Amino acid sequence: MKSDIPQLMTERGLDALVVYGNTDTSSDLAYLTGGAHLERAMYLHARGREPVLFASALERENAEATGIPTRLWSDFPLSRYLQKAEGDLLAARIAQWQAIFAENGVQGRVGFYGLADMGYAFRFLSALAQALPDIEVVGEAPPNLFATARETKDAWELEAMRAAGQATTEVIANVFDFLSGHRAQEDMLVKADGAPLTIGDVKAFIRLELVKRNLEETHENIFSQGRDAGVPHNAGRYDMPLRLGQTIIFDIFPRDRATGYFHDITRTFFLGYAPDPLARKWLDVKRVFDEVMAQIRVGEPGGKYQQMTCDLFEMLNYPTICSDPQTTVGYIHSLGHGVGLDIHESPRLSTLGPPTPLRPGHVVSVEPGLYYPDEGWGVRIEDTIAFDESGRLVNLSDFPYEMVIPVGQ
Amino acid sequence: MKSDIPQLMTERGLDALVVYGNTDTSSDLAYLTGGAHLERAMYLHARGREPVLFASALERENAEATGIPTRLWSDFPLSRYLQKAEGDLLAARIAQWQAIFAENGVQGRVGFYGLADMGYAFRFLSALAQALPDIEVVGEAPPNLFATARETKDAWELEAMRAAGQATTEVIANVFDFLSGHRAQEDMLVKADGAPLTIGDVKAFIRLELVKRNLEETHENIFSQGRDAGVPHNAGRYDMPLRLGQTIIFDIFPRDRATGYFHDITRTFFLGYAPDPLARKWLDVKRVFDEVMAQIRVGEPGGKYQQMTCDLFEMLNYPTICSDPQTTVGYIHSLGHGVGLDIHESPRLSTLGPPTPLRPGHVVSVEPGLYYPDEGWGVRIEDTIAFDESGRLVNLSDFPYEMVIPVGQ
Repeated sequence: MKSDIPQLMTERGLDALVVYGNTDTSSDLAYLTGGAHLERAMYLHARGREPVLFASALERENAEATGIPTRLWSDFPLSRYLQKAEGDLLAARIAQWQAIFAENGVQGRVGFYGLADMGYAFRFLSALAQALPDIEVVGEAPPNLFATARETKDAWELEAMRAAGQATTEVIANVFDFLSGHRAQEDMLVKADGAPLTIGDVKAFIRLELVKRNLEETHENIFSQGRDAGVPHNAGRYDMPLRLGQTIIFDIFPRDRATGYFHDITRTFFLGYAPDPLARKWLDVKRVFDEVMAQIRVGEPGGKYQQMTCDLFEMLNYPTICSDPQTTVGYIHSLGHGVGLDIHESPRLSTLGPPTPLRPGHVVSVEPGLYYPDEGWGVRIEDTIAFDESGRLVNLSDFPYEMVIPVGQ
Repeated sequence: MKSDIPQLMTERGLDALVVYGNTDTSSDLAYLTGGAHLERAMYLHARGREPVLFASALERENAEATGIPTRLWSDFPLSRYLQKAEGDLLAARIAQWQAIFAENGVQGRVGFYGLADMGYAFRFLSALAQALPDIEVVGEAPPNLFATARETKDAWELEAMRAAGQATTEVIANVFDFLSGHRAQEDMLVKADGAPLTIGDVKAFIRLELVKRNLEETHENIFSQGRDAGVPHNAGRYDMPLRLGQTIIFDIFPRDRATGYFHDITRTFFLGYAPDPLARKWLDVKRVFDEVMAQIRVGEPGGKYQQMTCDLFEMLNYPTICSDPQTTVGYIHSLGHGVGLDIHESPRLSTLGPPTPLRPGHVVSVEPGLYYPDEGWGVRIEDTIAFDESGRLVNLSDFPYEMVIPVGQ
């Protein structure tokens, strides 16, 4: 959590942090500035000094509202440095940062964070390192200082994430009611006028439900049916009518505009009825899901539960990514991921990456699934869970697991 | 435009391009993949070869739908490289990319693009350069190859941007109708029950109007009144009642989900009536806006119109950023910016940056404004304009400039 940052700096031997970017995309900057909207900002934190936030004059009030002492870019006008650099924008920007760093005590080992064009970041930081010999540019491989700080949520964050979960499950409940409010004609759901209800119609309904709750989709939800449900990131085809007796994967992961925190939840269901062979697949996934949910606890590395999920699916005779990294059927992804200001963050429930244990304050998705597009089906069940201060599991996705959604006749 | 890319590679002496990232945030990748949703993808283009798109197995169909020959990350399983690298993720990733580059002819001068954590980009590309001596890592300062390609829109893009403008102006028309549909009580707009209509109420209405048209806000719209309108990026306070006779800046810049293209438009208006002194300010901005719109043309650098705007405002006795870069009142920003798959892109109508001329296919915002928070007002008028194939100006923001929105009594 935020209060860990000084300790994390010490562990990395960092004398200063520089976090640059746009708060809408650079979630590390959003983390530090707590929901302020800043298009081009820089957070400086030199060891033993108060942090400083640089912002555009256009956004000075947004910056000041963060409570972090604010300075304006225009206090170091780029036009002045451009003149000295005879129009060379890269050189001007370096001279500007040099002046800002000098005034704010940024020196020694400096960690750089925030999203930027990767080629430009390489070029700019290489040039900066050369121009400022008293600075050592430090770039971290993931999980970096902020990924590490952010993976442990404090009480305020856990409450924000509970609220995001509550709002998201309200949307799902209303979508299920919306579906149940339609009648079937032969094997298709139809509207009052007899026209088929399509996935596009459902998506339009979902969007209205989200906006009413101040939830936004940074990436479109998944509402995929039959063979499309067998391809994990297939978002669903808009013109496809909804049919009875098919697997429908509904995976929704909105961001709460009020706090910036995401929620992630998936339900797989059938409209009207579940054909026996597919019902068995649904039950197999649910069984693995339940077993993992019963076992998962703090103190153990996330990768352990990925391996457990693979073992359980293999016991049930499904191929898995653990024994065959190239399989495209069976269980083909990792068990879950941290959720927070990014939809995918640390820690990962994966056998790849560092085997760091789950801890109080961690929030992760748990999402086993099976995928068989050529057989026309896919099943995934997902909740987002938190471990509270005492390490107890708290399910943030408080919503039932219904295999069949009844529809009108 | 896209067809310029081979020529732009030649001009930069590049043997290959690597564009890495998430299509939702890395707009260069979105540009190449035409609206596909890919969470972690890599586009490789070695001179003289067909481009290749690397995607996750979870998204293989999204990737294939782009029409670009697709390969899967799992064809080069990270787990295998991790094993060889004894769990060192950075080393494993470099070995993976090395194998991918070798198989796809990526060598020589290679330009890297796409959003990444800036520190990690520096570290990863530094390590890559060291590990792969047959590659020269090239990072470009802005405007880079893609900024240059993207600033010229082709006919399909211009049509997509026209559609985004059409949908956005429909939203504004409905917001104005919504406001007019309310009555005034003393100097405040009130709802049927007599409670004040707040900015929060208007924002909720705007969000519904946007979602109905498949428009999304990646960054919240500005609906700011009185002194808040005097601070350009103040988005407006939700609990503030709407009052008659105040400047209200409504700046809306949604993205069309169907195409990924943005539109950007601002209107400043008064509810009920415009007090004389403020009406004169509005007319001053409108006069400058009209003059710039009458003058702006292809063949001239964008910075010329920033200077013209400053000169016009100074003639009217307002301070400007051109003569005083630190002024916080008067005209305090640049005249405009390119609009496309990013809300702010090349070319800039600014005196900073390269003096490259406006050209057919450019799409820019034109947005003069005046800001006096301590006097309780701000005015900005903005349209997004395009220059068509023949260089003729086409206004994509086809919407009237009304100073006063009438309200019920």
